[in-house]
This record gives sequence, structure tokens and C-alpha cells, in this order.
Amino acid sequence: MNDIAQQSIALHKEQQGKLAVVSKVKIEDSHDLSLAYTPGVGAVSKAIAKNEALSREMTLNGRTVAIISDGTAVLGLGDIGPYAALPVMEGKALLIKQFAGLDSFPLVLNTKDPAEIIKFVRYVAPTFSAVNLEDIKAPQCFQVEEALQDLGIPVFHDDQHGTAVVVAAALRNAAKVVEKPYNGLRVGIIGAGAAGLAIAKMLLGASCHANSCSFVDMLPRVGEVVVFDSQGALYKGRPGMNVYKQAIAGISNNGSLQGSPEQVLKGFDVVIGVSGPGTITSELVRDLADKSIVFAMANPDPEIMPQEAKAAGAYVIATGRSDFANQINNVLAFPAIFKIAHELKLKQITLEVKIALVEALASLVPDPNPEEVIVSPFYPHLVDVLTQKVIEKLRS
Amino acid sequence: MNDIAQQSIALHKEQQGKLAVVSKVKIEDSHDLSLAYTPGVGAVSKAIAKNEALSREMTLNGRTVAIISDGTAVLGLGDIGPYAALPVMEGKALLIKQFAGLDSFPLVLNTKDPAEIIKFVRYVAPTFSAVNLEDIKAPQCFQVEEALQDLGIPVFHDDQHGTAVVVAAALRNAAKVVEKPYNGLRVGIIGAGAAGLAIAKMLLGASCHANSCSFVDMLPRVGEVVVFDSQGALYKGRPGMNVYKQAIAGISNNGSLQGSPEQVLKGFDVVIGVSGPGTITSELVRDLADKSIVFAMANPDPEIMPQEAKAAGAYVIATGRSDFANQINNVLAFPAIFKIAHELKLKQITLEVKIALVEALASLVPDPNPEEVIVSPFYPHLVDVLTQKVIEKLRS
Repeated sequence: MNDIAQQSIALHKEQQGKLAVVSKVKIEDSHDLSLAYTPGVGAVSKAIAKNEALSREMTLNGRTVAIISDGTAVLGLGDIGPYAALPVMEGKALLIKQFAGLDSFPLVLNTKDPAEIIKFVRYVAPTFSAVNLEDIKAPQCFQVEEALQDLGIPVFHDDQHGTAVVVAAALRNAAKVVEKPYNGLRVGIIGAGAAGLAIAKMLLGASCHANSCSFVDMLPRVGEVVVFDSQGALYKGRPGMNVYKQAIAGISNNGSLQGSPEQVLKGFDVVIGVSGPGTITSELVRDLADKSIVFAMANPDPEIMPQEAKAAGAYVIATGRSDFANQINNVLAFPAIFKIAHELKLKQITLEVKIALVEALASLVPDPNPEEVIVSPFYPHLVDVLTQKVIEKLRS
Repeated sequence: MNDIAQQSIALHKEQQGKLAVVSKVKIEDSHDLSLAYTPGVGAVSKAIAKNEALSREMTLNGRTVAIISDGTAVLGLGDIGPYAALPVMEGKALLIKQFAGLDSFPLVLNTKDPAEIIKFVRYVAPTFSAVNLEDIKAPQCFQVEEALQDLGIPVFHDDQHGTAVVVAAALRNAAKVVEKPYNGLRVGIIGAGAAGLAIAKMLLGASCHANSCSFVDMLPRVGEVVVFDSQGALYKGRPGMNVYKQAIAGISNNGSLQGSPEQVLKGFDVVIGVSGPGTITSELVRDLADKSIVFAMANPDPEIMPQEAKAAGAYVIATGRSDFANQINNVLAFPAIFKIAHELKLKQITLEVKIALVEALASLVPDPNPEEVIVSPFYPHLVDVLTQKVIEKLRS
């Protein structure tokens, strides 16, 4: 076990996790108790019983995000269950607090049934101001997120949209670095899970519901996208695809290319890995077009290590890791997403919001270079800056 | 609206509720991030995936109580729904933190179906170390609590057992004050909801599951109990009783007395109100035995005001309110219950624990008098003292 792993385990044991729930009010005598609890709280409850909307002003449900996971797709570790997912969800809650200033609480679930997860979220909704779905595997994650868009509070699956937003922002800047027009880029996406399909939609400028997709005019579009799962390229009519892959196959891979990434991606400009270590080979990178772009985002072990990709000729390289240049990390997106949703009291995270955030994020690197196509999570006041830019854009 | 009500509403608006979720670790740079989140947290998740029990040491689920309510029986306000219940649940969480030092988080539910509440709790269980069911109406609360006793973490319905523990402790001391033997007391309980039936069981020394009860030898027993609902006294074979009332009717009211409290309780020693204002009349109190005991516990407005009960001849009077002598409040029980459960890593709150807590609570008033049959919630180090006494008792 490496040093970071050991330190992290020690930290988690020392603190018994990472989150604490604390009181915002003092309770030192019976007068304090009579305000925070009975009899005073009775007046608060009566007021809300008369006007439900007041609960957003007088309880934590005006400012608290639920982080909900079934533990089926945790980091790159797969289906490790709710108990093993909990440290990650505590971390997520902590990041929302740290970067967006919003309270947040993790709920890990002892069910993998999408219909039951949907019911669970509906039942618990009165407690929260927004829901972040996390580390739920594809295709169940699509079903769960779609079904909950009418909940009245934002329901956002970060592994899809957070990732897609950050990738799109980094790719816009990378296109500038390699001096190729964004709308001409030919892109291979290795991995057809939550992140892979969401990135494909974002880069194609498409909006999909189950197996039906439409193109959205306001969204800039790359030249070509081919998505791969473990069976090879997705193409129209290929056997063995769920409805979500079928939808993407219907709007991508216009030439119906068939085969493995190595076979299909010769001469492509971009390869994006959202799969696992080893799935982007040196040979694949060598066969890309000149000035190629490689985003190898599996965490903690990328599809190809940066030095190897560089040796094979890649010009711009990004990973999901904090110890290399160009970290493509959801933390650049989801805190801002929730901050914006709370500021604007949004009921859904619309495509407009995501697109505005892509633009805002990209704009924070005005002169991109191969070592910097995306900002660091520690960019000063990152969330405030993004929130302001997005709100300006949405109001313009 | 009175002053306390206005101040409470102002406080809730100012703070937007009462609880905050905060980080226990600092996140100032990418090294901190790599320990609290990726890549470090991956090692923590892997360790737990191998050995689930480690999650109790390395996540908040070793020290965090869920406060779960469907909002169907909130304070004395009835079925006001989950939004209006949330301020009370935040208050409860705050009290557990304040008095027991345990973290706690409220979850209010958009369903009243006991079967769905049971599933909900089963699904969310991996997140928590214990569950406090709160303000769920009878008889649903009995079904929910019974069904969840196999969960592996304690599931405790405070409105039943917290109340019963404090009433039993106060009644033991009140019996000393009026110089009557506890095991000869004749007790009327007005109210056959969660609290009323639980108090009846505790005073009768009985343990019940649905409609079957048995007497427990270790539990001291009062002389006689008659429980009343809005139809009058419960007696064997009375029409219009759910299975839980039938069970209590089967072990109480040995003379099968029928009628209203006024008709039945003439000459009784004790009347306990867990109903609503006005249900204990001056006439009723006047007709009790000499040196009578009146616990009028509806909150915020008691069944009879203390000065009226006193004028009618009551010798020991207690209420649920903090502004009168002898406050019978659950806060004397539930923080200690959860503290004890965590210290001893209990999987259920057994009858032994509750009985030991009754004795410990009663013992804190060694020389009871009419104005003091129970301690104040601000008794110094109350929870620590109770926890130590109970653990000693359980180990003896």
C-alpha cells in the first residue's frame, strides 16, 4: 500500500469518517431549549403546516444536498456495496461544503433496484434542497435520474454530467492548443458507462431520453464521435446494446465503423478514456492524427500513464489525477452546479446550465497550453467565479 | 402568538434551520484532497469492501443516529406532514448531539405507509449506527418498530419507550412522596397512542409483540392499570380496538371497568395524561384517592394546568413543560439510550436497558418531594451519569 493510501486510512480511523453534524444554535439552558425544541418549535411547525414553502426558509431543507449512492460503481472499484461507498460519499459531501458552502449529507443504500432507488429518493425528498446521485452504475443511473426530474428539486447524476461538463471545457481549450477547429475534431470515447455516454451527448450537442435523442442548436458539436464498450465500437444495429447505447449509436459513428479502438481510431484527433487502466495503448496513441489529445480519466490508475502517452506522440494529455498536469475532476463542476441551482432556486439542472458552465470553466484558462487546458480545483474562489459567470450568461 | 413562539420562528429563519454538516478534516490543498477524497479514499473503500465491519471505524456510520419521521404525529399537532415535522426532527438531532455527543441527522418522509417506511429504513441502514423513529402515529409506529428489530442496529421509537422510561422513573419517586407502595398504585392512563400503550406496558411490567403480551419478572408492577381512548376504558372484548389496544386490554383493567375516565377512575391513585388539553378535568382529580398523582403530559398544553390540578387536590403534579416543576421530558431518556447503545455496541434496545435506565433516572432524586420527583435535563453530566449507572447495572 502506498503512502497516500496509508495516510488516508489513518485519517479516516482517527476521525471515524469525515463529516460531523453540529448545532447552529446554542443550548445552554431551558430557555434555549424552549426555542430550539418544545414549546417554541411548535410555532415553526404550525407555520410550515400552513405554508409548506416556509420550510425552505426555516429548516435545513433550503440548503442541504443529499448524496445518494447504491455503491454499484464506486470510483474505479466497481460494485463494492453501500458500506464501502460511504467514505467516498462523505468525501463528496465534504467537497460540496468546502467548495460551494452548502451543507450535504450522504445516504448509502442497501438496494440496487432502480425502481426502489427512485421511490427512496421520492420519499426522502422533503428533507433536502437537491439530490446528487453518485456512483450508481449504468444503465440503472440513467433510469433513476430521468425518472426523478419531476421531483421539484434538482436531481443530478454527477458521474454523467459533472464529468461531461469538465471534459467539454478541457476539450475546447485543448482544441485551441492543437490549433484544430472544435467542430472538426474526431473523437473516440473508450467506455460506454455513465460518463462515456454523457460525454458523447455533450460533445455531440445532443439531448437524450432513454432511446430517443435530439440535437440541441445552442450546443457546439465536434466533428465525429465513436463510443466503445468492451465489444468494440457502438454502431447502429449492433447487437448487445441497452437502449441508452442504442440511442448514442443512433447519433454517433456516422460511418458505422466496426472494431476495437485500435482498429477504428487511426487518424482520429482525440481519445477519451473513461474505462480502466490499459485500455488506451501506446500503439493506439501512435496511430492518432498529429497533435493528438489524450484524456485518460480512470481513477486512480489512468487508461495510459501520461509519460507513456507523451512518448507515443500525444500533444495534450489530461488525467483524473491531482498529481499530474491537467486534472479533469468533477470537483470543478458539481459544487458550482449546486451553488447555481440554490442561487437561482432551480428545480432541474437544465442543459442551458451545463452549457453555460462549460463556457465559464473553459474561459478561466484564456491562454491554454499543453500543460494547462483546465483550471485547478484550487483556483481562487472558483465556485463563486463560475456561479457569477453562469448566472450572467443565463440572464443574458 | 406568544413571545417564545415569535423568538423561535425568528431563530429558525435566521439560521435556516438548526443543523449544519461540517468537515472534520481540513481541505486546503491537493494533498489534503488526495487523503479525504481520491485517490486516498480508494484504499479506505477497498479495506471496507474486504471487511464491512471496518466501516464502523472509518465512516460516520459508527457514530450517527438517523431521526426518521413521516410527520403523522408531530408534538401535539397531529398529522402535519414531513415538511412541518422537519424543525422538530432537527431539534431532536440537536439534542442527541448536545446531550449524548453523537452525530445525528433527520430524515422526513413523503410516505405514511408502514410497509414503505420499513423498506426505507432497511435501505438507508448502512449509513447509520442507530435509528430513532419519531412522531409516527399509532398503531403504525408499533408495526414499523417491531418489523425492524432485526436490522443489526438499534431501532428505537422514542415516543413510546423514551416517554415510558421517564414516566416510570417519575412515578417511582412520586410513590415515595405520597408514601404509597408502587406495587399497589391504581393508575389511569388517558390516551392509547404510542406513549399511552408503552407506559401501560412499562407500568404493568409487560413485553408485547403485536397482540400477544407476557409479563417480565424483573419489571416491578403497579397494582392496576386502566387505559382510555376516546371511546372510554379499554377492556377485554371491547369493540373498536386495534390489535395493539387488544393486547393491552388483555393484561390490564382486570375488573373490566367500562366508561369514561370520570366514571372509572374514582378512588384511583394516579392519572397520567398523554392525550390533549382538557381531557383531565378538575372533577376527575377531585374524585381520585387522597394524595393523588397527576402527570399531565400533553405538549405544549397539558391535559390540566398544574394550578388547577393542585386546587382539585392533586399532591404530586408533573407536566411535559419546562416552565413548571417536574418536567417529564423524553430528553431525560433518549440521549442516554443512544449513548448506552453506542458504548455497548447494542443491536437492539432491550427491556433490560430500559429498566436499568428507569432505575438510574429515579435514583438521581434520592429525596423526592412534591416539587421534585424527576431531575432536570440540565442535571450536570446527566447522560454520562446515567450511562455509567446503566452499564454498571447491566454488567452486575
